[in-house]
Amino acid sequence: MAKKTNLQEFEAVFPKLEKVLLEDAASYKLPQAYLEWYQKSLNVNTVGGKCNRGMSVPDSTSLLLEAPLTEEQYFQSATLGWMTELLQAFFLVSDDIMDSSITRRGKPCWYRHENVGLIAINDAFMLETAIYTLLKKYFRSHPRYVDLIELFHDITFKTEMGQLADLLTAPEDKVDLDNFSLDKHSFIVIYKTAWYSFYLPVALSLYLLDIATPKNLKQAEDILIPLGEYFQIQDDYLDNFGNPDHIGKIGTDIKDNKCSWLVNLALDIATPEQRKVLEENYGRKDDEKEAAVKKLYAELGLKERYEAFEEKRAAEIREMIEKVDESEGLKKTVFEAFLAKIYKRTK
Amino acid sequence: MAKKTNLQEFEAVFPKLEKVLLEDAASYKLPQAYLEWYQKSLNVNTVGGKCNRGMSVPDSTSLLLEAPLTEEQYFQSATLGWMTELLQAFFLVSDDIMDSSITRRGKPCWYRHENVGLIAINDAFMLETAIYTLLKKYFRSHPRYVDLIELFHDITFKTEMGQLADLLTAPEDKVDLDNFSLDKHSFIVIYKTAWYSFYLPVALSLYLLDIATPKNLKQAEDILIPLGEYFQIQDDYLDNFGNPDHIGKIGTDIKDNKCSWLVNLALDIATPEQRKVLEENYGRKDDEKEAAVKKLYAELGLKERYEAFEEKRAAEIREMIEKVDESEGLKKTVFEAFLAKIYKRTK
Repeated sequence: MAKKTNLQEFEAVFPKLEKVLLEDAASYKLPQAYLEWYQKSLNVNTVGGKCNRGMSVPDSTSLLLEAPLTEEQYFQSATLGWMTELLQAFFLVSDDIMDSSITRRGKPCWYRHENVGLIAINDAFMLETAIYTLLKKYFRSHPRYVDLIELFHDITFKTEMGQLADLLTAPEDKVDLDNFSLDKHSFIVIYKTAWYSFYLPVALSLYLLDIATPKNLKQAEDILIPLGEYFQIQDDYLDNFGNPDHIGKIGTDIKDNKCSWLVNLALDIATPEQRKVLEENYGRKDDEKEAAVKKLYAELGLKERYEAFEEKRAAEIREMIEKVDESEGLKKTVFEAFLAKIYKRTK
Repeated sequence: MAKKTNLQEFEAVFPKLEKVLLEDAASYKLPQAYLEWYQKSLNVNTVGGKCNRGMSVPDSTSLLLEAPLTEEQYFQSATLGWMTELLQAFFLVSDDIMDSSITRRGKPCWYRHENVGLIAINDAFMLETAIYTLLKKYFRSHPRYVDLIELFHDITFKTEMGQLADLLTAPEDKVDLDNFSLDKHSFIVIYKTAWYSFYLPVALSLYLLDIATPKNLKQAEDILIPLGEYFQIQDDYLDNFGNPDHIGKIGTDIKDNKCSWLVNLALDIATPEQRKVLEENYGRKDDEKEAAVKKLYAELGLKERYEAFEEKRAAEIREMIEKVDESEGLKKTVFEAFLAKIYKRTK
């Protein structure tokens, strides 16, 4: 039987990886003060999140093996999991600068730490580079080493394209709803989120076990990309309709001119008069204007439309999971675990 | 006989690579407007420099072969050369943001182009990613494909460490000469410049021809790293002592609080009174204070000390070149070509 990991177990792996990364930097004779800076950046930016992406690598690996992981298997899959967290750290540190964000995980964003500022850009680069240092250290003799490197390159590029599309579609300071569309929203969330958050961890497990056949990768993609899109649409939904006590923050997508699923759906179904309400009120840092948009969302029945979307998408995904061909080592349970975590979540 | 390339010939290769990169992005269904953005970023940031680093790949390859390159050899080595230019573009776009620079190659820095701003950070990432897209496209079946990827990763990390050391040692807005030292200067210039500008192009040629034996790589490193350090020291020297008509700009290192070789040498040999002059005048945006530093540099004989350094370093490098073991395919002429371009240059 498979066994699920937990945050404590997963976090216990990080100090070993941190040690390897610091020893590597020290081997280049990086002066001590700069080593300490790198160490701080690694810790502040990589550790302290929920690690859902990272933990899904050992979880998927255990499900694929239908057995608890040996110590060595756990270490290897958790190491790949930490690489997904490093990739995310690289993106979040730089996204926060580009979005002028204030806090991340309840603390000041890295670039807002004392004396950091735009040095954070270079720190982000070093977080990305750490992925390849770890890959080389632990996987150089793995039969799928080259595929693992290419997978990270590919997912990195996809996420960068998603980020570009997001930045160009919804600049925080310039509201232009003509720029929005459900198609663009779909591109953005699939590229910016779904590939690295959902496909990447499972693909890593498949490569680790050397069962990443073209068929298995294709099946994983076909299920995990719509699932990831659904996850992000749900995130957009919860920003407005969720309980702030559950989601741990008060949503600001309307004020921040975010290219949210909700506004795109609203634009898609609005009458000319309703569109005018959006034009006049969306993306403004103003409580009354925000309230006007929220009122319109209610009138348009977006909550019910989301619920219908969720049921339809979940049913489609269940059907795809049902049809998964397990003959090359893939397991339906991997996808069931992802869906169970997402379906009707409130936080 | 080897044949030297020229900028026109080298630049003629770029459109083909650009086409490949855009087709790759288009294959992911990146919307047209965003493709055009990517294309503009590629062109503005990669093309238009002197391409000394990029051209040194085909030049080194021709010297190693002791023959003009076939069309295929030229294309392959120029493609690797363009990857060094992409790596540099990735660094320059982000350095310019971190340093608040105004112009680059006589034009506004990319982040200062209309509507770009901090989106330039993501554009920089995409320039880096382009390296690996091209490597995969043209070198996936090359016997040293993995080494080529690892070489780029390794040099990228080294350059990032150099950039970190530079940013932490010499923040533009906080003068603290206690932070400076000749040792730190040496670390910064070797890591930030020498590895990617001198070692990387030659290592690429060696891998391309599959003669990157440990011995050849070590010989290249032993010569090209001191040579690269010398190049950057010369750059620092020319900033103050060079002819602005030759170097194409008026030096601003003193006003910009740069961790230049000159100020580090001055600190190393200054009396307490002379150090006070530096403490009171270095790193200020003030013509009189700059003049006071320049006067001290003259008193300390820095011009003559540089000239003595140059003769000594050039002699050491000539001696190392003389002793190069060519038995595994390396050629002295590769290094002679680099030295000839640098020794006593005035621009």
